[in-house]
Amino acid sequence: MILLTRRAEFSAAHFYWVEAWTADENQRVFGKCSNRNGHGHNYVLEVTVCGEPDAVTGFVVDLKEMKDVLEREVVSVYDHRHLNLEVPEFAGRQPTVENIAISVWERLEGKIPQARLYRVRVYEREDLFADYFGEQA
Amino acid sequence: MILLTRRAEFSAAHFYWVEAWTADENQRVFGKCSNRNGHGHNYVLEVTVCGEPDAVTGFVVDLKEMKDVLEREVVSVYDHRHLNLEVPEFAGRQPTVENIAISVWERLEGKIPQARLYRVRVYEREDLFADYFGEQA
Amino acid sequence: MILLTRRAEFSAAHFYWVEAWTADENQRVFGKCSNRNGHGHNYVLEVTVCGEPDAVTGFVVDLKEMKDVLEREVVSVYDHRHLNLEVPEFAGRQPTVENIAISVWERLEGKIPQARLYRVRVYEREDLFADYFGEQA
Amino acid sequence: MILLTRRAEFSAAHFYWVEAWTADENQRVFGKCSNRNGHGHNYVLEVTVCGEPDAVTGFVVDLKEMKDVLEREVVSVYDHRHLNLEVPEFAGRQPTVENIAISVWERLEGKIPQARLYRVRVYEREDLFADYFGEQA
Amino acid sequence: MILLTRRAEFSAAHFYWVEAWTADENQRVFGKCSNRNGHGHNYVLEVTVCGEPDAVTGFVVDLKEMKDVLEREVVSVYDHRHLNLEVPEFAGRQPTVENIAISVWERLEGKIPQARLYRVRVYEREDLFADYFGEQA
Amino acid sequence: MILLTRRAEFSAAHFYWVEAWTADENQRVFGKCSNRNGHGHNYVLEVTVCGEPDAVTGFVVDLKEMKDVLEREVVSVYDHRHLNLEVPEFAGRQPTVENIAISVWERLEGKIPQARLYRVRVYEREDLFADYFGEQA
Repeated sequence: MILLTRRAEFSAAHFYWVEAWTADENQRVFGKCSNRNGHGHNYVLEVTVCGEPDAVTGFVVDLKEMKDVLEREVVSVYDHRHLNLEVPEFAGRQPTVENIAISVWERLEGKIPQARLYRVRVYEREDLFADYFGEQA
Repeated sequence: MILLTRRAEFSAAHFYWVEAWTADENQRVFGKCSNRNGHGHNYVLEVTVCGEPDAVTGFVVDLKEMKDVLEREVVSVYDHRHLNLEVPEFAGRQPTVENIAISVWERLEGKIPQARLYRVRVYEREDLFADYFGEQA
Repeated sequence: MILLTRRAEFSAAHFYWVEAWTADENQRVFGKCSNRNGHGHNYVLEVTVCGEPDAVTGFVVDLKEMKDVLEREVVSVYDHRHLNLEVPEFAGRQPTVENIAISVWERLEGKIPQARLYRVRVYEREDLFADYFGEQA
Repeated sequence: MILLTRRAEFSAAHFYWVEAWTADENQRVFGKCSNRNGHGHNYVLEVTVCGEPDAVTGFVVDLKEMKDVLEREVVSVYDHRHLNLEVPEFAGRQPTVENIAISVWERLEGKIPQARLYRVRVYEREDLFADYFGEQA
Repeated sequence: MILLTRRAEFSAAHFYWVEAWTADENQRVFGKCSNRNGHGHNYVLEVTVCGEPDAVTGFVVDLKEMKDVLEREVVSVYDHRHLNLEVPEFAGRQPTVENIAISVWERLEGKIPQARLYRVRVYEREDLFADYFGEQA
Repeated sequence: MILLTRRAEFSAAHFYWVEAWTADENQRVFGKCSNRNGHGHNYVLEVTVCGEPDAVTGFVVDLKEMKDVLEREVVSVYDHRHLNLEVPEFAGRQPTVENIAISVWERLEGKIPQARLYRVRVYEREDLFADYFGEQA
């Protein structure tokens, strides 16, 4: 078994806010991230699949197809978007780097031909990232 | 004469929009960047000053003071903000990487003790950046 | 379960030396690293915790608290220090990147609120790093 | 147990081609990579070993010896070479990043003194890499 | 005046060889680079243009057009190619990083709408790069 | 004319201290850097030369010779050393990144065959670097 990882990027805006809380509570817990005008990041996404390399092509996954799936299922939906306002799963889920990793997993699971999704890593900045391996991990 | 460069970072949201244009015109010229919900980036700022190293301390500039100036004049104003909505100079100026570099220069000029401002570089992404040397350059 | 990783940095001096050995033996085993005047590195520390994202905040760990713990327990003790001379655990333990990773784990275990410490990674240089998962790994 | 990773690099040429296929089939599956004149990459190799740090030296592995093994077994064979034409294992195996990771593992297994080979990671580009943990993983 | 830089990448094979020299002379001067099977690199190209930001759009150059020019004039010609065998200017010119920078300049000069070409930088590896400013520089 | 830049690295210890000052004055001006046990960095050195590419070889400078000069004149003297205690020029000159850039220039000037030294850049950390162009710049 071998792991194959491909990186993609998207630039998006977000903020953190709990409707049930006062502005002061949101500010106390989320600090600058509670600014409802939003701020943004260059997110880096690393998607890892696992499988056996094909005996003829040497590929675990067709890279062209994998790139198309990432583009169609994630990048075209998240890139140059305001995550809170335009991406459905973040209507009721804070767009933290943890929840983005889970959401990317849910969007990709079962969509990549041939190989099995193994891990989703999302970097919000170079010094902060989350890894998700699905529920069974 | 020697150049000394210090890097800082800020995360912000922005979009491009010309009020005098139709939505179609904005879309045609600015593409995905015309989404008025905004999107965002991890901007990297490199500020370069020039001067002679002090004979005793070996410093062109007091790094602590320089860091404080960058924080007070730029980072605290731009970081975790929506540039179009919250930073005054971008009310009438598109927040392109070119205009951000010019705006940072205008905010810093004459503010750094001892040394002379030489160049402002702003990266919007690792693969796109602008350099500004002031008007005399 | 999700993993959340935060990066921190410290700059420190160190050298390798076994008191029970002759200078020649130290030189033979440790090479340039046996220079007792010390040399130094920009160490990069990646601390990974695991847990479930909070249903309301979306956080596995309060990032502000985690940053404070890293600062108080590790960075303020190691940064701008000579590891052999000023950090107690390296009195009887060579400050190799392996031992620094173990020492950082010991300093952090049980100190990060809410989440469980999962992995400590320490880079001595970009091309050399150690990972420690605690004793049970 | 601790993991220790060391990075190395090599620059090489390669292409993908299945002799049993027509030129059209090769072009359809491999795209630009089927150009038999070859193209190339700066490959980055990360080799991870595991073990206990020596109580006296603090090392899991003698870094000098590990570097010599990587140089002798892999870098001197792959660097500045055309993988398809000059490296024996790629006569009958496409030099994909997956197969390069497996081949590096086979070249290194049992050759690094003291420590056990744990993982081989090969980057073809910064945004594409493979991990191999040997057959038992 | 402001400078705007955009990065692009291409992966290619090359070797160094002077037909008028013996194999020994080629080996002595070019070392491993004289292997006529070729080896390769992930080249990184940084193209800098200069001009005044447009008062309305804030752009020195239309980034979409600039990207199209880089793709059409350079990347589509160099990427996944063997520079010595497939790119006409390297029939009579060694494909060193210096000569690649000059060749990219010659391909781009006068082709980028609105702005003036200022500098071409080419990285062969992260630790080796050339800058060319045209003949008048 | 073309510029060619080559990168090298060295790891060293240093501190800042003015003998004529009290400990309090040193602490006030230099902060944590005044710790006389020393701390350290992975310094990155970028040396740029300029010239015309040779019509036959395509080289501005023989890279092998340039690498040997950097190794002999700078890296072998600075690497794994304590700059204040072991490198003569820092006996009477604070080892700031500005002064290190000047010192590297003085060590290299006139030593690189064929090409002219154009710029020395030294990074103390990724976010702090100095450029020196010699006295005529």
